[in-house]
Amino acid sequence: MSAIRHALNTKRADDFAAWYQEVVSAADMAEESGVRGCMVIKPWGYGIWERMQRLLDARIKAAGVENAYFPLFIPLGNFVREAAHVEGFAKEMAVVTHHRLIADGKGGLIPDPEAKLEEPLVVRPTSETIIGDAMSRWIQSWRDLPLKLNQWANVVRWEMRTRMFLRTSEFLWQEGHTAHESAEDARIETMRALEMYRAFAEDDIALPVVAGEKPENERFPGAVETWSIEAMMQDGKALQAGTSHYLGTNFAQAANIRFQDREGGQQLAHTTSWGVSTRMVGGLIMTHGDDDGLRVPPQVAPWQVIILPMLRGDDGDAALLEYCEGLRAQAAAQSAFGEPVRVLLDSRPGKAAAKRWDWVRRGAPVIIEVGPRDMEGGTVSLLRRDRLWNDAAKPAFATPTREEAAQTLPGLLSEIHTALYTEGKARRDAQITRDITSMEALAEFFGEDRRYPGWAEVQWSRPTG
Amino acid sequence: MSAIRHALNTKRADDFAAWYQEVVSAADMAEESGVRGCMVIKPWGYGIWERMQRLLDARIKAAGVENAYFPLFIPLGNFVREAAHVEGFAKEMAVVTHHRLIADGKGGLIPDPEAKLEEPLVVRPTSETIIGDAMSRWIQSWRDLPLKLNQWANVVRWEMRTRMFLRTSEFLWQEGHTAHESAEDARIETMRALEMYRAFAEDDIALPVVAGEKPENERFPGAVETWSIEAMMQDGKALQAGTSHYLGTNFAQAANIRFQDREGGQQLAHTTSWGVSTRMVGGLIMTHGDDDGLRVPPQVAPWQVIILPMLRGDDGDAALLEYCEGLRAQAAAQSAFGEPVRVLLDSRPGKAAAKRWDWVRRGAPVIIEVGPRDMEGGTVSLLRRDRLWNDAAKPAFATPTREEAAQTLPGLLSEIHTALYTEGKARRDAQITRDITSMEALAEFFGEDRRYPGWAEVQWSRPTG
Repeated sequence: MSAIRHALNTKRADDFAAWYQEVVSAADMAEESGVRGCMVIKPWGYGIWERMQRLLDARIKAAGVENAYFPLFIPLGNFVREAAHVEGFAKEMAVVTHHRLIADGKGGLIPDPEAKLEEPLVVRPTSETIIGDAMSRWIQSWRDLPLKLNQWANVVRWEMRTRMFLRTSEFLWQEGHTAHESAEDARIETMRALEMYRAFAEDDIALPVVAGEKPENERFPGAVETWSIEAMMQDGKALQAGTSHYLGTNFAQAANIRFQDREGGQQLAHTTSWGVSTRMVGGLIMTHGDDDGLRVPPQVAPWQVIILPMLRGDDGDAALLEYCEGLRAQAAAQSAFGEPVRVLLDSRPGKAAAKRWDWVRRGAPVIIEVGPRDMEGGTVSLLRRDRLWNDAAKPAFATPTREEAAQTLPGLLSEIHTALYTEGKARRDAQITRDITSMEALAEFFGEDRRYPGWAEVQWSRPTG
Repeated sequence: MSAIRHALNTKRADDFAAWYQEVVSAADMAEESGVRGCMVIKPWGYGIWERMQRLLDARIKAAGVENAYFPLFIPLGNFVREAAHVEGFAKEMAVVTHHRLIADGKGGLIPDPEAKLEEPLVVRPTSETIIGDAMSRWIQSWRDLPLKLNQWANVVRWEMRTRMFLRTSEFLWQEGHTAHESAEDARIETMRALEMYRAFAEDDIALPVVAGEKPENERFPGAVETWSIEAMMQDGKALQAGTSHYLGTNFAQAANIRFQDREGGQQLAHTTSWGVSTRMVGGLIMTHGDDDGLRVPPQVAPWQVIILPMLRGDDGDAALLEYCEGLRAQAAAQSAFGEPVRVLLDSRPGKAAAKRWDWVRRGAPVIIEVGPRDMEGGTVSLLRRDRLWNDAAKPAFATPTREEAAQTLPGLLSEIHTALYTEGKARRDAQITRDITSMEALAEFFGEDRRYPGWAEVQWSRPTG
């Protein structure tokens, strides 16, 4: 058996971090912007995020949560009010201090000293305080509860060391914020959001996760409980992929969110917040990527099917394009996961083989090549991105008829989703150790010798007294 | 005929500006945030914007434009490079100068002097320069052209006097940015975007517009040509509702966007940019609002149909809710404008009449009330928001059977769209004066005596020599 010639230079097993960077670049996902800590999300990467938004937003709306939009800027005073101990406070946030630029007289521009803000504004790192302000205006009585809001937005947390999608100064996310009559209602909402994230991760993007509570030292500041979904990356490490916080009455106290209860008394509301960010795209890469690039789960693939005509620049091209257009139309008329199949006929200039490998690196779930011989036989050459290689170390093309190819796409896409999920789940389960029964064994398991230890599942009880 | 008792306190004819503010508030669209110049977009207002995004985004994608995302922050140097005459430069923009807050020792927080940025960052007022940087990296050859990108984002232009949706420091928009081989291709794209905006305004949100070129003094800085769609508000004034700029090679020069042409030479790309913002929501209010509140065109209504059960808090409520749920399910199974009908069964606590007027002020296109007598007769009481009053100055309820009501919704919604468009178009056309033939007559037409003069359509020719 000859060796496979993979589409990437770096293999996961050799250098996982370098492999990740190569996928981000080779799959055309994102790049450094030249602005410290900020990335440019390129169309293929942004397209995946847009699909995630579409699917998660439908789940959010189905839960009766309404989208709204709150200011990018938060007055400094909001943070003072919230921070329990201002003296110990130091936060990496972008601070706006001026509202005008003027010429410096030397050919450059400077912030206008005349336009210094009386109170600096902070670019939101999260919106609990500003949304809390709105809630305090909108909530008067128990009849106004529950109030369930969500915002899709950019947020900024200044980072010194960044990794694309995983940790950047600016990132995109959704943040849910809800207020309730009772602790019990708020806890139910906290768990509903957590379960929504689990279903989104597993059913929409084929990312097997474990949902559970975070320890105290990893709680969101001000939260009573922080829950998360954790996904296992291929290097055995955990990625926190979504969090849901029960905030008790802490933020209601700071923002004065009070309501008249059913008995006529005044009470503080119980609030929650929950979020998923573009970090999920990083998790998707580290779960589903392989040594040939990314493999995008079909439901979040901007294009699920790529048709590549093998054009030769001669008279035969017109007929070949027509044949491909027929396939495109048949495929687009199919429905997968309750939506029309997203199919691209890629007839840009360029060699078909080069374009094939481009789409392999980007991870389009199905790539269909069509050459003159395929057309003569009424067939196409179909490649599943999740099963790229055959036993002879060659691309594993199938050759269905054009009609078969189009008609079987919905089933095929569904199969690819399941295959990616099953593969990720098997890997995760194989890397969870369950036979550790003492603190000593646990310390040894996570000792310095083991670089990628996977996870340990152990018995635990909260210390008493 | 008795007088109509309208749902708003202020009438358009009495004080158009005050009426506008009352609609924004009474229709639950937006409110002041407490952050200077920034508004909170409330769920009903944001829902309308989301619907606009959904429809415009489909048009953008259909044109082969790809969405991407670029940094919120732009280095100061980009503006120096772009500004033709830095010495004359003064711009109202939010400037980030620090990246950390620390305690001031007096119980407050201040920007950390140790964390001052070497180069201040500007919160994007628009993204030509930062997207131009990316284009200069992404474009090498004519094969990379056209490059057609779009971004949905928040932008900030510091404003001293703000009006909700119409002029706020932070606003939401989409900005298209494209690069082409030739001036001709770029001009074609400029006009394509303009026509896309016209179709979006007229066909999707029933906003009659006039598309044309702006005079030189209203051009986007750096543009060769600026085109816009202009909508006429009910006070006879024009609202610029979308712009499309042909930028020539000006921005390509500043950002160094060069490509190898088909003959092997090096050329500057020709670029365009085009945008529509949340200002469109303000235009929608000022076009379709009336003395009872907003009237939302059906295609951008978050809920197109509201079902209001007249609950009495007694044993009969369960059967009434079941009857209403049957209507909801039948209505939601219908399709209007190619999408499932968006129907809300509003069974929140509260009196039905109060809830009716809430939905009238918000402008839901169809409101269906159901009381015990309706249920007994197998009927419902249906109100068209665009034809609210009958000749007796009462709400003009129709009483179809439940099945008729559900089945005729698609046609009814389509009729409402057309009625709103026709009304707006008739009003616009009636307020355009076409018989002005001299500069003197034009000056008189726009003289100080006339507060709401409408528009004048006149002959014009570019001065020569």
